[in-house]
Amino acid sequence: MAAGSRSEARLTQALFAPRAVALIGASGDPAKNTARPQRFLRKHGYAGRIFPVNASRAEVLGERCYRNLGEIDAEIDHAFIMIEAVEQALEDCARRGVPVASVYSDGFADAGPEGARRQARLVERARSLGVRLLGPNSMGVVNLPGRLALTVNAVLEMDAPPAGTTSLVSQSGTMLGTLLSRGAARGLGFAKLVSVGNEADLGVGELVALLAEDPETRVILLFLETVRNSAQLAAAARKAHAAGKPVVAYKLGRSALGERLARSHTGALAGPDRALDAFFRDCGILRVDMLETLLEIAPLVAGRKPPELKRTPRVAVVTTTGGGAATVVDRLGLHGIECIAPDPESPIVDLTMTATSERYAKTLRELLAWPACDAVLAAVGSSAQFHPELAVEPIVAAQAGEKPLAAFLTPHAERSLALLAARGIAAFRTPEACADAFAAYFAWRRPRQRPSFDAPQPSKDAFELFASLGIPVVEQQIARAPDFAHSIPYPVALKLPGVDHKTETGGVALNIVDRAAFEVQCKKMNAKELLVQKMVRGLAEAIVGYRDDPVAGPIVLLGAGGTLAELYEDFAIRLAPVTADEAQEMIAEVKGLAPIRGYRNLPRGDVSALARAVSAFSTISLLKDRPISEAEINPLIVEAGGVAAVDGLVVPKE
Amino acid sequence: MAAGSRSEARLTQALFAPRAVALIGASGDPAKNTARPQRFLRKHGYAGRIFPVNASRAEVLGERCYRNLGEIDAEIDHAFIMIEAVEQALEDCARRGVPVASVYSDGFADAGPEGARRQARLVERARSLGVRLLGPNSMGVVNLPGRLALTVNAVLEMDAPPAGTTSLVSQSGTMLGTLLSRGAARGLGFAKLVSVGNEADLGVGELVALLAEDPETRVILLFLETVRNSAQLAAAARKAHAAGKPVVAYKLGRSALGERLARSHTGALAGPDRALDAFFRDCGILRVDMLETLLEIAPLVAGRKPPELKRTPRVAVVTTTGGGAATVVDRLGLHGIECIAPDPESPIVDLTMTATSERYAKTLRELLAWPACDAVLAAVGSSAQFHPELAVEPIVAAQAGEKPLAAFLTPHAERSLALLAARGIAAFRTPEACADAFAAYFAWRRPRQRPSFDAPQPSKDAFELFASLGIPVVEQQIARAPDFAHSIPYPVALKLPGVDHKTETGGVALNIVDRAAFEVQCKKMNAKELLVQKMVRGLAEAIVGYRDDPVAGPIVLLGAGGTLAELYEDFAIRLAPVTADEAQEMIAEVKGLAPIRGYRNLPRGDVSALARAVSAFSTISLLKDRPISEAEINPLIVEAGGVAAVDGLVVPKE
Repeated sequence: MAAGSRSEARLTQALFAPRAVALIGASGDPAKNTARPQRFLRKHGYAGRIFPVNASRAEVLGERCYRNLGEIDAEIDHAFIMIEAVEQALEDCARRGVPVASVYSDGFADAGPEGARRQARLVERARSLGVRLLGPNSMGVVNLPGRLALTVNAVLEMDAPPAGTTSLVSQSGTMLGTLLSRGAARGLGFAKLVSVGNEADLGVGELVALLAEDPETRVILLFLETVRNSAQLAAAARKAHAAGKPVVAYKLGRSALGERLARSHTGALAGPDRALDAFFRDCGILRVDMLETLLEIAPLVAGRKPPELKRTPRVAVVTTTGGGAATVVDRLGLHGIECIAPDPESPIVDLTMTATSERYAKTLRELLAWPACDAVLAAVGSSAQFHPELAVEPIVAAQAGEKPLAAFLTPHAERSLALLAARGIAAFRTPEACADAFAAYFAWRRPRQRPSFDAPQPSKDAFELFASLGIPVVEQQIARAPDFAHSIPYPVALKLPGVDHKTETGGVALNIVDRAAFEVQCKKMNAKELLVQKMVRGLAEAIVGYRDDPVAGPIVLLGAGGTLAELYEDFAIRLAPVTADEAQEMIAEVKGLAPIRGYRNLPRGDVSALARAVSAFSTISLLKDRPISEAEINPLIVEAGGVAAVDGLVVPKE
Repeated sequence: MAAGSRSEARLTQALFAPRAVALIGASGDPAKNTARPQRFLRKHGYAGRIFPVNASRAEVLGERCYRNLGEIDAEIDHAFIMIEAVEQALEDCARRGVPVASVYSDGFADAGPEGARRQARLVERARSLGVRLLGPNSMGVVNLPGRLALTVNAVLEMDAPPAGTTSLVSQSGTMLGTLLSRGAARGLGFAKLVSVGNEADLGVGELVALLAEDPETRVILLFLETVRNSAQLAAAARKAHAAGKPVVAYKLGRSALGERLARSHTGALAGPDRALDAFFRDCGILRVDMLETLLEIAPLVAGRKPPELKRTPRVAVVTTTGGGAATVVDRLGLHGIECIAPDPESPIVDLTMTATSERYAKTLRELLAWPACDAVLAAVGSSAQFHPELAVEPIVAAQAGEKPLAAFLTPHAERSLALLAARGIAAFRTPEACADAFAAYFAWRRPRQRPSFDAPQPSKDAFELFASLGIPVVEQQIARAPDFAHSIPYPVALKLPGVDHKTETGGVALNIVDRAAFEVQCKKMNAKELLVQKMVRGLAEAIVGYRDDPVAGPIVLLGAGGTLAELYEDFAIRLAPVTADEAQEMIAEVKGLAPIRGYRNLPRGDVSALARAVSAFSTISLLKDRPISEAEINPLIVEAGGVAAVDGLVVPKE
């Protein structure tokens, strides 16, 4: 066993299966949050030793209390710190060889810049001491199969939350409780749940990596407010994929899109959330849109691989309730998922009048074996409420093989939901979450193999950079005072060189038809040097952007030109760099580029040349030390043969 | 009391509060659907008399059974028909003076064209007999406060479903059960529930009109698959509004948009669902997107009027669970709803560490009194699960006045949901339905007062029609062989008159710069008469459409020109006619028209002239006998001063 792997195993054990825990700052007042870890550990049958530590008490909740760690005569695997003097507690931990401490105490990066500085000092201290840190501002760790409830989260007041094979890493401590609570009511159990708090040391990525190796975890759920270390999370997601464990994310912050100011369109369009969409896709993480989907999707993806369909996904819906099925069919349609049945006249298989349990199970089995559909959904009506065993029986009987089988229950039917959960069958309470889960499943891609290219040559001038990347630039010359001679054929455009060429700034004159008009413009612009460009109209304008996103890393963006991309938020984003084939996929995603793809028999543009340009542009991410924060070609003219960059900008990092 | 109102009162009584019911086709086998009405009426304590009717039995489920209606020695208010010989049963009803019959029997319009013909005969017979008909294919009627469970819906197997003040009219019988079942689990009770089946006679509209007069109904919910009689529903919705009763619709069929073929863009774009959106808005019906919202929204709108805000809606969110509140705040943002707090630095009021019950209630009261916000939401964490009374107490204590107060509960917390329901406070189980409900509430408008205009003059020629409506048409002349003389200044466009001028057909040549090029084109087109138009470019192109929608009635559509409206589904629709002020609102809704509204300092187009043109065009709906099925101006050129119709078409009804 390698050293890294050994220390990882030790960390996993100390985090999730400690033989002894110290509760630093344990309270004797059972109403206080700081009394909860001890209460919850006892309540849920923790088998290890518990050492409450509190300098001012000899007894806590009927158990001996220790004044400090030094008094404890056992090896402690995990300390839970609830006092303000966190650093002191860490030093005590180090002295006793405690490998990991979960820190509930807050007032760090969660409390403004001063707190952030305190946190930086804390983490530095922890590293020098060799103690790993969960938090600060963490609500702790739960391991249900392992009967560890090392947490202040009130959800553990519940009796016997069900154990399962789904694990959760949450940036919100309270949402850990929400998901555990809602799952328990449905019989959807969890394996491990971790509240990462401020992620000062142990972050989402490292925890995903640990869970990827955890034999008790089959699916990893993430509740995210942001991504603090995308490289680590990407590596961990890839590791989880290799281990056959799907990673599913619900992430907040979608509506903040586009609020920040940015110098380029790319900056404005590709806000952190859209960039993270590209990031999740890149490393094989499924993203769900609705909170309940995060909980309900686990059985749908457990043990499965990304479907990677090359065509519209197709679901066969079997039902005994036409109206109920229609609510899902309608919603699946909004996600671009087709509903099919062997009878081409009907979108569903309606067994309302003819359903016996055998007939129902047989129909499900036939559809699971039917190559034309990619998944099967059973929409169950009132029987789910009044005869749960009978209602789920045919679904349980049919369950088999690689094709997903899921259920949507129309009435209030907790018992049926639990029965299905117990058999590992995905069951949905609302048509919307059901459709959201199928959409996430069908959009799921295996982690992308990043292409390798030679690193390009840096340049601060936009046109020089484009040219050095091999992107065709429109025919242009610098014309100089006094005569401004040039050999570009009319009509031409005239621009102030090196200026941000947005129309608003007045640094650009278009469609100059002859020498006379040209001279008038030269005078007007009143500069020693002017850039003369051939006017090219082409079939369409595109915008190609690059951004070194602070959260997701380098991304490449493609949209239709003009104001369209912005008005309609119509663009495709990928992590950079991309191959020309991947750029072709991006082109297919942009609605505003439909005209050059042959829409309504309009003349086709040179989509291959566009794809090559996007790919070439995306290699900006390979420049040594990544000196560029944003860059864009805007517009890139797409002609019937070829493309031409007409304008653009490059923003170096500060 | 007027005769109409008297017969309405009699119908309401017979439908919802019959003193005696006949169950025609009642089964003695308790496992059969046809045994349910008798079982359910007894189970739920129906106080009237029940007469099972079955020619082949003397006793059914322990009660005397009648061979036919003639044997019954009492006045029957309501017959429930479950046999195939529906027409015979109706005749029996008429003979006994039964005013209304609910027909469970199916095989009518639900079963293809032959069934539709049977249904037409049935309804004609019922009318001539003077018997009102619910169904066929109806699951019946439930009146919970009135203890009437005259239905085959299995949901009535449940014990004591809670009574409430919300009523439901459903085109799906099974979804009636779904909503009743889910509501009961949450303490959300119902007053009356009606399954309208095929709506052969009594339809959604008439039932809404009856419920508008029902003193026990405060909110009317609609589960719709389509709208069969929009005029009736519109009138009923207006009546309900006048009575202070909000009408809320969930409607299927959203994803079928754009599938059908149509001659005009307008036809393709304004599918029945988009047209119904305009219809709902027009008559003051709220539309919700998610199924659960239909259930959860009732307390939010009960007793309230449309907010009719002139600016972005603002919600104040109070929470003890940051992560939980964030899930709603995020979703509200996606709906364009702002979250505000007295502390301008924060989008929420976070009481996590400081919440006492008094402090919480005080904060809620302050926010309810705060003029800056339009609604208040309390996001409640784990206390909702473990201390329901404590958790809901401050919310109940704060509830008051006109501003909506709602709750989102993050954990599984059925008891808290029920407590809030009992106090008439809207409570949401998911962040998505919560945001959907707020979005529907803020989009709610009072029924629109239809403008009155003089009826325009009909014309089959598109340009003549536009001109007669007062819409400026581009300068044009007919040029005739052999010399094709005209006086339009170059550049011009040349078109085959009376042809559908889509670019694909080749019947159009644009940008002809001089006489020589003109003559070449004239030869090419090879026609005796050609239409010569001045080339106008303007600042933008718009498409203005009219459609006599078979479901919603006449509508007017506005989109950006070119392929944009279609690619992005970016257009505004209203029921026709509209005033110029209403057309201004439509212009503001079309993203693709942003450039002429002054976006990014682009030159502004004559938005007023565009609005006048849209209003004028919409009066096509006032043509005598509505002879036109579709019409459009495409493009309508918008200039800095004025607009000009360049092309268009008029499709008469067949």
